[in-house]
Amino acid sequence: MIVLFTDFGPCGPYVGQMKGVLYRSNPGVPVIDLLADAPTFDPRASAYLLAAYAADFAPPVVFLCVIDPGVGGSRAPVAVKVDGRWFVGPDNGLFNVVGMRGREVEWWDVTWRPQRLTATFHGRDLFAPVAARLARGEVPPGERRDARIDRSWPEDDRRIIYIDHFGNAITGIRAAAVGDGARLSLGGRTIARARTYADVPEGQSFWYENANGLAEIAVNRGSASEALGLRLGDTVTIA
Amino acid sequence: MIVLFTDFGPCGPYVGQMKGVLYRSNPGVPVIDLLADAPTFDPRASAYLLAAYAADFAPPVVFLCVIDPGVGGSRAPVAVKVDGRWFVGPDNGLFNVVGMRGREVEWWDVTWRPQRLTATFHGRDLFAPVAARLARGEVPPGERRDARIDRSWPEDDRRIIYIDHFGNAITGIRAAAVGDGARLSLGGRTIARARTYADVPEGQSFWYENANGLAEIAVNRGSASEALGLRLGDTVTIA
Amino acid sequence: MIVLFTDFGPCGPYVGQMKGVLYRSNPGVPVIDLLADAPTFDPRASAYLLAAYAADFAPPVVFLCVIDPGVGGSRAPVAVKVDGRWFVGPDNGLFNVVGMRGREVEWWDVTWRPQRLTATFHGRDLFAPVAARLARGEVPPGERRDARIDRSWPEDDRRIIYIDHFGNAITGIRAAAVGDGARLSLGGRTIARARTYADVPEGQSFWYENANGLAEIAVNRGSASEALGLRLGDTVTIA
Repeated sequence: MIVLFTDFGPCGPYVGQMKGVLYRSNPGVPVIDLLADAPTFDPRASAYLLAAYAADFAPPVVFLCVIDPGVGGSRAPVAVKVDGRWFVGPDNGLFNVVGMRGREVEWWDVTWRPQRLTATFHGRDLFAPVAARLARGEVPPGERRDARIDRSWPEDDRRIIYIDHFGNAITGIRAAAVGDGARLSLGGRTIARARTYADVPEGQSFWYENANGLAEIAVNRGSASEALGLRLGDTVTIA
Repeated sequence: MIVLFTDFGPCGPYVGQMKGVLYRSNPGVPVIDLLADAPTFDPRASAYLLAAYAADFAPPVVFLCVIDPGVGGSRAPVAVKVDGRWFVGPDNGLFNVVGMRGREVEWWDVTWRPQRLTATFHGRDLFAPVAARLARGEVPPGERRDARIDRSWPEDDRRIIYIDHFGNAITGIRAAAVGDGARLSLGGRTIARARTYADVPEGQSFWYENANGLAEIAVNRGSASEALGLRLGDTVTIA
Repeated sequence: MIVLFTDFGPCGPYVGQMKGVLYRSNPGVPVIDLLADAPTFDPRASAYLLAAYAADFAPPVVFLCVIDPGVGGSRAPVAVKVDGRWFVGPDNGLFNVVGMRGREVEWWDVTWRPQRLTATFHGRDLFAPVAARLARGEVPPGERRDARIDRSWPEDDRRIIYIDHFGNAITGIRAAAVGDGARLSLGGRTIARARTYADVPEGQSFWYENANGLAEIAVNRGSASEALGLRLGDTVTIA
């Protein structure tokens, strides 16, 4: 199974071009669109999101991850194996959180280069062919290295790192790290915890542990983003 | 074949997480995104849409349907078989129209619970595994019940229940229930019927029987939604 | 492999209904969403886009293309084979650029009609079944004709023909047709060429040869569309 995690957006030809490469190489391997609207140009916020969602996919799985504003520049292409799951993409921090939280980390610099390597679409030209190989059980075409993990990053990201279609605001804070009775504060408001939507009146805001373990701010049958004026990157404090 | 019908939106990680479950269980079974932007929080409008689209998929097929604002509350999970097609999701009215129009209805309450059942994502934790089983030909993990169908619902929904990418406004009215010469009225305007876009001048509004049998309001090479100021939920009358 | 190229938008039930037909006919053949937001009602701009992307998919491949504002009117359904790649859709100019640039072109008028042929969704009723047959290696259900290619079209389209999720503006001009030192002008501005994002300062605009060979206008870590006020259809001149 190959799982796509990008900031390419819901439209456009980029995901399809990568799938063309993947299905041509491995016709029988399912390719899953996990996220196509990861925070644009923000590998760090994406790294916390990726860590939350990756846990949901048991090995064997290959995550093909392209949040790559430095494409064509000096950042390295890497393949990282964390507790049995492969991650392929640019070495720009995108895999730092899965690395920090992992027990067993294998790090490979990808040194193979394809015949056609455009300056701006390594997702299609470089990362997709590598992901296809890993999905076939091959080793990464590169060199095994010591893992380059920056352990100075905070354990959780106390910002809003994703806002979904319903207007729910997902933070980078794991709910398990927050006391049950804790409130979240942002923009002068304080928000109490609930278990699920149906547990609060319609129109009321609350926070809860979402289905991937993150603290998420919502409004029952409404948009937290609109009601509370929340934006990507807003800082959240635990009260 | 498993067909997804949700209000999760065109982006976000929810559809991908459900597909992860489905492809892991049944690698060879195609999963089709039918609709990801069903009317949010509105199982009733969605029920009329679902009935129109479901007819297009011949059995064997499993519809995995998640318009579920009451997730984690008291509504039951159900698996309903209507004329050979399976529908899995919350018992909140979403399957009432397929049930009303069906000839043979089998109704199961899903009593099985997975090891991990989060309070807010039954689509991934409960409905997807059940859909995967049904797609393998298994019986629903639950108890056969009398069908709970509310026959007080109108046969058609005289509202705009979907607006598409072109700005076409789809009503919940089956065109077969409307006379050929009938006009539709909404917001003080009256709109005549045509067969297709090319049959009216550019910029003219008309209504027609869409490819799924519903009365749909359109403008040739334009957006009916913008031109006529139409919004989801607007009431339509047959003149 | 069947590749979808439409203006159906990122949401809505149309792509899913076509996939229902395709997977029912050919369960094991991958179906790839290449583009769902081709310029609405504009087969000509779409024709230049299609030619750029099609080159990326080696035969055997079937492109199922539906930008079809004249659906149900007099335009013919066609199946065109260009250098080993099949294209199926309406004869409204959509295949004119691949035809102009092709070495070997086979042109078929599709004369077969399905039992159910709605007036407004030939994508599902007519083109998808034909694409499924071609993907199985069958000949088109129709009549071989002389290719109807309009060679009066310009070799490149000097307009912005697509704006992507990042706000990058893709022109219909092949970069190979432009000198390395050439600048692009539009709206009173003149833009210089660079190789990739990382080669210019943050916030600076530039143009480059994109991964499909087209001249594309971008801003490093920003939106060219917003920064420069670009819109679909804007004319570009080579300075």
